[in-house]
Amino acid sequence: MSLDVPARLTVTTRLAVAADRAAIAHLLETAGNFNEEEAGVGLELVDIFHGDGPTSGPEGDYPTLVAEIDGQIVGYATIGKTPFTHGTWHLYFIASDVTRRRAGIGRTLCLEIKKFAQQRDGQRLVLETSGRELYGGTRAFYHATGFTEEARIADYYSPGDPVVYFVWRW
Amino acid sequence: MSLDVPARLTVTTRLAVAADRAAIAHLLETAGNFNEEEAGVGLELVDIFHGDGPTSGPEGDYPTLVAEIDGQIVGYATIGKTPFTHGTWHLYFIASDVTRRRAGIGRTLCLEIKKFAQQRDGQRLVLETSGRELYGGTRAFYHATGFTEEARIADYYSPGDPVVYFVWRW
Repeated sequence: MSLDVPARLTVTTRLAVAADRAAIAHLLETAGNFNEEEAGVGLELVDIFHGDGPTSGPEGDYPTLVAEIDGQIVGYATIGKTPFTHGTWHLYFIASDVTRRRAGIGRTLCLEIKKFAQQRDGQRLVLETSGRELYGGTRAFYHATGFTEEARIADYYSPGDPVVYFVWRW
Repeated sequence: MSLDVPARLTVTTRLAVAADRAAIAHLLETAGNFNEEEAGVGLELVDIFHGDGPTSGPEGDYPTLVAEIDGQIVGYATIGKTPFTHGTWHLYFIASDVTRRRAGIGRTLCLEIKKFAQQRDGQRLVLETSGRELYGGTRAFYHATGFTEEARIADYYSPGDPVVYFVWRW
């Protein structure tokens, strides 16, 4: 008897380096849930992380991690300490290779983000996403990872498109 | 019969100019509801507005208005189109002269902000503030101006200190 489940590949994570930029841009472009403006801002944050300003680097405003399978970049996330808060972090962007669904990339990234934030006194991770039908899979993923939907504002992104705030507390 | 109500002084508004920086810094420092980090970020946004980059100026990311009485700066606000949205604007900072409470400074600024956003297809104004007791007066002001409390996330600023999202829709 054989089950139609692919062998589990090992997903590893590390801090992004400048040479990862093209792979990250590709992830943003092909993820299917970022428009051009969003993908552009996603890449801007990565560039700030890679810069040499006071807000750059892993202790700066936008720590960025990549996930790899067999040395190939299959996902990335940009997070940051939420300004004006104590212990709150934001997950600003997360994307994974659409050809590798169910490989555990998003989950591995989230667990690593939690660890990263915890090491810096982080106690909760907040993210904003759309309440539209199109993002149902995304929201299900956050729920499964440990996030709870805690707030909504109607017509936020546009009429009929609410923002949903998810929080993962530990 | 005389009522103990001061004569209503005329509050006017205009876009901020670089020479207003010290007056705005003073408002942030004396408002009583911004800590050092918050006041610093408030001033950073004003500096971006006054800069000459692609995100500067009234059509940039942080349009900034000042309120005056008799040519003296008595209030200011920094707003901006909310990224990734259609028609949503944010009120990032607003402060008024603590020695001129009830002069209508905050209300006049909010009405002008609404007009400014409306002229740029804005349909709603969102702001984030603290749910702590200390900010009860601030929240009452937003309610009186037309905002509605639409969402909350517990322990956001710190344990016991929730963020409250107010929205003014028109």
